[in-house]
Amino acid sequence: MRFGIIGTGMVGRTIADKLVALGHEVTLGSRTKDNETGLAWAEQAGPTGHAGTFADAAAFGEVVLNATSGTVSLAALRAAGAERLAGKLLVDISNPLVFSAEGEVSLDPVNTDSVGEQIQREFPDAKVVKALNTVTAPLMVEPGRLEGEHNLFIAGNDAGAKADAVALLGEFGWPAESVIDLGDISGARGMEMLMPFWLRLMRSFGTAEFNYSIRRAR
Amino acid sequence: MRFGIIGTGMVGRTIADKLVALGHEVTLGSRTKDNETGLAWAEQAGPTGHAGTFADAAAFGEVVLNATSGTVSLAALRAAGAERLAGKLLVDISNPLVFSAEGEVSLDPVNTDSVGEQIQREFPDAKVVKALNTVTAPLMVEPGRLEGEHNLFIAGNDAGAKADAVALLGEFGWPAESVIDLGDISGARGMEMLMPFWLRLMRSFGTAEFNYSIRRAR
Repeated sequence: MRFGIIGTGMVGRTIADKLVALGHEVTLGSRTKDNETGLAWAEQAGPTGHAGTFADAAAFGEVVLNATSGTVSLAALRAAGAERLAGKLLVDISNPLVFSAEGEVSLDPVNTDSVGEQIQREFPDAKVVKALNTVTAPLMVEPGRLEGEHNLFIAGNDAGAKADAVALLGEFGWPAESVIDLGDISGARGMEMLMPFWLRLMRSFGTAEFNYSIRRAR
Repeated sequence: MRFGIIGTGMVGRTIADKLVALGHEVTLGSRTKDNETGLAWAEQAGPTGHAGTFADAAAFGEVVLNATSGTVSLAALRAAGAERLAGKLLVDISNPLVFSAEGEVSLDPVNTDSVGEQIQREFPDAKVVKALNTVTAPLMVEPGRLEGEHNLFIAGNDAGAKADAVALLGEFGWPAESVIDLGDISGARGMEMLMPFWLRLMRSFGTAEFNYSIRRAR
């Protein structure tokens, strides 16, 4: 299958590597065609890994993944182009972290809105599914790095797109029963608002390799 | 030991019942001395359960617990009186949920502040520890309702007060190793911001009887 990835950061490259390893074809998209990170990634990825612009990646992918920082996601997806996203599953992995001069972290948007919702509003013909933003990049594609059961969450308006997202997460190693459906895309709010808690856990543990396992009454 | 509880809602009464059952003496505080819920609780609680005003509860307790809604916690604690909180462990259980006319839930404060921090700023002589706001009331005092390991979180500026809070949580049934320290009181931000996620999980599961178990690399 063909995938377009918007963003050449750690998350984008980790997922691109995994998709290529799974036998898929990937275009890793960046702001400019001559982005060195993108070109270097494609060089080492072999014949099924390509680099291009955000628009190239969106046009290429049957499925598109947004791996940009949440504060620039809308701009990146505008550059990708609404017509190249229309009708496709668009997996939004972003978190809208804002770093103050004092080193304090906050979210924008937050509380009454989320990046997931912003994207769905601005690209109504894309099928946005929020997913994967709650774990560190290595865990996204290798959940077995942690012992036992632990969970991912999804939110989106289109049931078919969510089923496709669960199948994709299954290829990454996440059993379908480990993925908890939080309902429509406004569930992205709670998923993004996990970030301040996640950052505190990371600070306490001294590692980003942890995840939530939800225990419930049977 | 003597405990003062600020707030006669479900959380306040659940914790008051547990403290009395553990052999402690409790004053359950409300806005007015003749609050019916408070009086009815004290009536059935027996000789070690009392009802009174917020000020009565704060004066009575060697430890004080804030079990009011986060949107009214500062007003309730002002009524309790700074001088009656000074030097004491003040366990803040609140979540600042705001319900819109359309039924939408948001938080106030959020993102760059929290109720825990607001309380610590306004009552600098109290030793505020954020705790217990991440689980439903029955679980607060009976973690064994869920199988296996699951976690609570604490945040606060005073190490001794946090140790006392962990000991109190131990009396409630939470092993010390299940309580994760998120650092100073600004960690309350992430704990309160779990609420939108928690509400979505509750909607998905159809029950509030669930909790987070944090899995990490060993």
